[in-house]
Amino acid sequence: MDRLLNPRSIAVIGASDDPAKIGGRPIAYLARYGFEGAVYPINPQHARIQGLDAYARLEDVPGPVDLVIIALPAVAVQDAVADCGRLGVAYAIVFTSGFSESGPAGVELQEALRRVAAASGVRLVGPNSLGIISEPARLAATFSTVLDRPSGLVPGEAAFVSQSGAFGSLFYAISKDEGVGFRHFVSVGNESDLRIDDFISWFADDPETRVIGCYVEGLRDVAGFRAGARKALEHRKPLAVIKVGKSETGRQAARSHTGAIGGSDEAYDGLFRQEGILRFAEMQGLLDFLSLAREARFPASNRVGVLSISGGIGVWLADRCSELGLVLPPLHATTRERLSEVLPSFATAENPVDFTGQIVNRPELLAMAVSHMLQDPGIDSLIVVMGLLERSGERIACDLARALESTGKLVVVTWISGPSAAYELLRSESVPVFKDVARGIQALASMVEYGAVLKRPSTKDDDAILMPQAARGGSFHWGGTEYDTKRTPASCGIQIPRGGLATTLQEAMEIARDTGYPVALKVQSTLCLHKTDYGLLELNVRSPEQLQVAYQRLVLRFASAFAPQVPQGVLVEEMVDDPLEVIVGCKHDLSLGPVVMVGIGGIHVEVYRDVAFRLVPITSSEALDMLEQLRGRRLFEGYRGRPPSDLAALAQAISRISILFSKSADILVELELNPLAVLPKGKGICALDALAVAR
Amino acid sequence: MDRLLNPRSIAVIGASDDPAKIGGRPIAYLARYGFEGAVYPINPQHARIQGLDAYARLEDVPGPVDLVIIALPAVAVQDAVADCGRLGVAYAIVFTSGFSESGPAGVELQEALRRVAAASGVRLVGPNSLGIISEPARLAATFSTVLDRPSGLVPGEAAFVSQSGAFGSLFYAISKDEGVGFRHFVSVGNESDLRIDDFISWFADDPETRVIGCYVEGLRDVAGFRAGARKALEHRKPLAVIKVGKSETGRQAARSHTGAIGGSDEAYDGLFRQEGILRFAEMQGLLDFLSLAREARFPASNRVGVLSISGGIGVWLADRCSELGLVLPPLHATTRERLSEVLPSFATAENPVDFTGQIVNRPELLAMAVSHMLQDPGIDSLIVVMGLLERSGERIACDLARALESTGKLVVVTWISGPSAAYELLRSESVPVFKDVARGIQALASMVEYGAVLKRPSTKDDDAILMPQAARGGSFHWGGTEYDTKRTPASCGIQIPRGGLATTLQEAMEIARDTGYPVALKVQSTLCLHKTDYGLLELNVRSPEQLQVAYQRLVLRFASAFAPQVPQGVLVEEMVDDPLEVIVGCKHDLSLGPVVMVGIGGIHVEVYRDVAFRLVPITSSEALDMLEQLRGRRLFEGYRGRPPSDLAALAQAISRISILFSKSADILVELELNPLAVLPKGKGICALDALAVAR
Repeated sequence: MDRLLNPRSIAVIGASDDPAKIGGRPIAYLARYGFEGAVYPINPQHARIQGLDAYARLEDVPGPVDLVIIALPAVAVQDAVADCGRLGVAYAIVFTSGFSESGPAGVELQEALRRVAAASGVRLVGPNSLGIISEPARLAATFSTVLDRPSGLVPGEAAFVSQSGAFGSLFYAISKDEGVGFRHFVSVGNESDLRIDDFISWFADDPETRVIGCYVEGLRDVAGFRAGARKALEHRKPLAVIKVGKSETGRQAARSHTGAIGGSDEAYDGLFRQEGILRFAEMQGLLDFLSLAREARFPASNRVGVLSISGGIGVWLADRCSELGLVLPPLHATTRERLSEVLPSFATAENPVDFTGQIVNRPELLAMAVSHMLQDPGIDSLIVVMGLLERSGERIACDLARALESTGKLVVVTWISGPSAAYELLRSESVPVFKDVARGIQALASMVEYGAVLKRPSTKDDDAILMPQAARGGSFHWGGTEYDTKRTPASCGIQIPRGGLATTLQEAMEIARDTGYPVALKVQSTLCLHKTDYGLLELNVRSPEQLQVAYQRLVLRFASAFAPQVPQGVLVEEMVDDPLEVIVGCKHDLSLGPVVMVGIGGIHVEVYRDVAFRLVPITSSEALDMLEQLRGRRLFEGYRGRPPSDLAALAQAISRISILFSKSADILVELELNPLAVLPKGKGICALDALAVAR
Repeated sequence: MDRLLNPRSIAVIGASDDPAKIGGRPIAYLARYGFEGAVYPINPQHARIQGLDAYARLEDVPGPVDLVIIALPAVAVQDAVADCGRLGVAYAIVFTSGFSESGPAGVELQEALRRVAAASGVRLVGPNSLGIISEPARLAATFSTVLDRPSGLVPGEAAFVSQSGAFGSLFYAISKDEGVGFRHFVSVGNESDLRIDDFISWFADDPETRVIGCYVEGLRDVAGFRAGARKALEHRKPLAVIKVGKSETGRQAARSHTGAIGGSDEAYDGLFRQEGILRFAEMQGLLDFLSLAREARFPASNRVGVLSISGGIGVWLADRCSELGLVLPPLHATTRERLSEVLPSFATAENPVDFTGQIVNRPELLAMAVSHMLQDPGIDSLIVVMGLLERSGERIACDLARALESTGKLVVVTWISGPSAAYELLRSESVPVFKDVARGIQALASMVEYGAVLKRPSTKDDDAILMPQAARGGSFHWGGTEYDTKRTPASCGIQIPRGGLATTLQEAMEIARDTGYPVALKVQSTLCLHKTDYGLLELNVRSPEQLQVAYQRLVLRFASAFAPQVPQGVLVEEMVDDPLEVIVGCKHDLSLGPVVMVGIGGIHVEVYRDVAFRLVPITSSEALDMLEQLRGRRLFEGYRGRPPSDLAALAQAISRISILFSKSADILVELELNPLAVLPKGKGICALDALAVAR
């Protein structure tokens, strides 16, 4: 993409002499921000445009053209792209709107455009793109009025790609206001050709890009996006996204905005977690992370030290850390001792450390305390809360910067209403500093989160196990009765209740003897799938005598309802006593394709939405991560005297069913194990019922 | 408190000539910020201090003294307060630390100080107070270095009272940076005498104070705080708090910070909701609300209109609104029509409305769209998202301010990276404007929340019902068996399972006949409280024949375990079929005293902490509000074919048990109905088991 982001020359088709018009802005901005290549305005009406020689047609341009910007009415875009193709132009950015975002006619127009571009070998950004800003080349190939604002392009190590031009522009504006620069900024528009994943992948390879941000409404190529995300992870470059369409209103609004179909937000959450992508709820949080992640100092654990000028804010931070999954470990005895020597007697040498307002009179305190905290082996990152210090702030900032020179640990300084000299000094020494404590700790938490992503076991190792298992895989069993459908999980090694299908009382007795009492008896017939409605099951049958009575009762009940039909048989099964129940289900997400879901059984799934999703297939270790994500995971640790659950067996079952569904996604609409009983550790799991829905 | 917040004269005991020292700062600040009353430095070593005549002793001061500031070592404070008393000084602020916040000796010292103050008739602020800033009197009676910062006191309609001096100062600093002024700012320190509730109550009465903010670590007088909160609500002045100590680490840190005992954070949440107090998680949110609430334009409902320059931000806002409990209703047909006439064809005339970047070229669009939205009867507040507009921003702001002149609805403008002229213009016209969309919508949501508080039915009306009911009230029944304890809820009119205690088979048969089959049989004896362990209960007994067998089995089992002892009897009870179970419990909160809790039964309470608390006693309508607060409230609406629950009966039961516990809080440690079965609407509830623990 070098010719796109670092072109030697640009032609603007539909160029305007008015720098406020869409066709005029890129010409004005390219000049203003110092693009050094040639710029060729194309417009048959003018000989000169904004001081440059203008050309009637693209072919009149005297030199080679790497990039064309198209700012024409929608109907004229196809021809312009065809011209580009004929003249060997590699890339075109189409500003024009009125394509797929504007209804069925627009969708058709865009499809025609896509075909023309593909046929002529031109790679497109857009249509409906706001353009590209790339600081290294001073490429201001955009009509975003964000460039009307004073001050130049800010250099930076972050790249940003957005499915919404306006959202992207406003984010760019905020970043610029806060002094955070972007190396590359791309508005992909309707993604008729180049998509966000193409840019993510390219940014991952760009050695100067350290962190990648992204605004997503809906993915048009899931596999491409995953590949891009994986490449970013391999290069240890965080990929951070804002994904909208969480709520139903949001999804509807997204549909009318860009025509994107959102799919389940929970499935997106699963995808992001699966690929080590960090999701942000707000612009501010994303910006702070992009800014902080440039230094790539990702903490080795979630154990944080807090040093605060205010005890109150220390307490508040302790709460906030707990909400963010950060731990404030007790300090090492040596650290406490050293701090006590340094701090005033009424300060607290416990994490959170309150070094008190005494620092006003003893500015040397802070750097000493920081050094001691950083030497504590139990702490992997540090947040320092400062405030005010109009008089001594600069001196303190200077000491602090020196104290941080030799540490490899992440230190975030938050300084409320401090003197501007202190901020400037810290920033010039590359010490991360925030004016808002809440933002500082949030950004630190995101750094910890990415640190954990980097420590995850590589799923590559599992692939060796995964593939043969998948190959051995399961198969589907139809027939409509419980006995039939349960053969599906059984076929891929997922335990089901011991037992069997009996057609006579004698057989039932034998099965029960082998299985062990108590047992359940269930009449199997496609005539009555809802067995309870007809009283066609008997639970907790405890002895051969009870079995005999129960069996005959079932036979009579079936006959009275369905005679002369006969049932397929009676399923005799072991009873699983008071199990912890989960639901494992596979389905096709509207946007992301085949996914697997796990949730803690019953109303938890429906009312509390305590579920985790992943794209199939997944390995056992990915399944364990799903379980870790459940709010109710504490249930697996044992509760009310229950022993801990067999999580390993559960994870294996989730993995297996995900592989089975993945193999058979073209024939299956849905596959569900519900309930699946999770037994105590070492005892495995048991799929108590199964459901498979074919296309 | 007029003499405290608007004193005619102030003496500073322990005055210093050095304006950087604690005893020097208030003298410097009072002069610098223009306090017009007399200031008398007291210090036996100097004749002049910071240009003022100094006095050796308080009695040497030539005029009357309304307020004394004490900046002496801890050991000298008592005598100084006694001096104040002798000379008729009404108020003293004690800056000195080293009291209850610093361990047992400090607690004793503070108690002694409290006694001296009470005996001498001096009202104290502190000790360990950072002081008071009161803008109307230009009273800078503080040693907070926040006043070292440039610029004067900002006038405002908000008052703030803080249990942490440093937290308060930093909050004050941030507010000042953002141009939000405080009328009064009080650091209450250790609250040996005057507490936050005294100030809340006073602010509620102060006609110029419109909104009250508060930082809380733990309440020292719960009743006083409730009274203050109620007074604020009566005057329609929002009370907004930050309460720390949510997490265990936070609570520990709070204990070592001010010695406050936090109690359960969930109980605090209940108290805040009960008294119509808004709780904020962060300084920023609190500040934004204090700023926005000054105009007291509280929306009549949660129905919000969104007008956005960016479709992407519109989608994002739709998500955010949904999370915040705000609804984006479809627009009225007339509104849609009018918007379509005004907006460009590719804009969206659906809520969220995307008016697109066209506004760059057609700045008149916005004011028209705003007017149309405000006329929509389905919308009670409006958020406008703007961005950039370097060139036309001022013009648009001007139009917008004019369009808003006549509306009574709350309109929040968010404007990302706009021209400063636009912000200034909107602020000068009192149009609320935020640079950050997330902050704007959060503040709007808080305004909606307070609007809902104002619309709550007054609990006063319920008091008439409440008191006779409480008087009629229940009583406690001991004895240790289930039969005994269930008489407790029954005594205050809470339904328990029909049935009775049988001592013979004959009696059991009669009870079962009256109750109706199926029944449960439970042996009642204080020898075996855990009936299941001995097989001493039989469930689902369906007929007289089964009853006979079951009864005899129970008698035998009891005899084989406990003979020659005999049981108290056998409890024969109706079976409640597959009920929705909740837990209702009363206990004493460490900090807040007797509280009632409700949670949805079983593991929901333990794992998901889906519970709501209130201070007892509560009315039925308060109990309904508790149920509304549960995340699992959807379960009450009916699910999986279940009919809706009898919420009215449940609320009544919660109210009754809360009244009973309230009456008997001195003899009871705990009172619990668990499980309590909630039956379908019209069928009431049924306390399936009860537990009462006496002191």
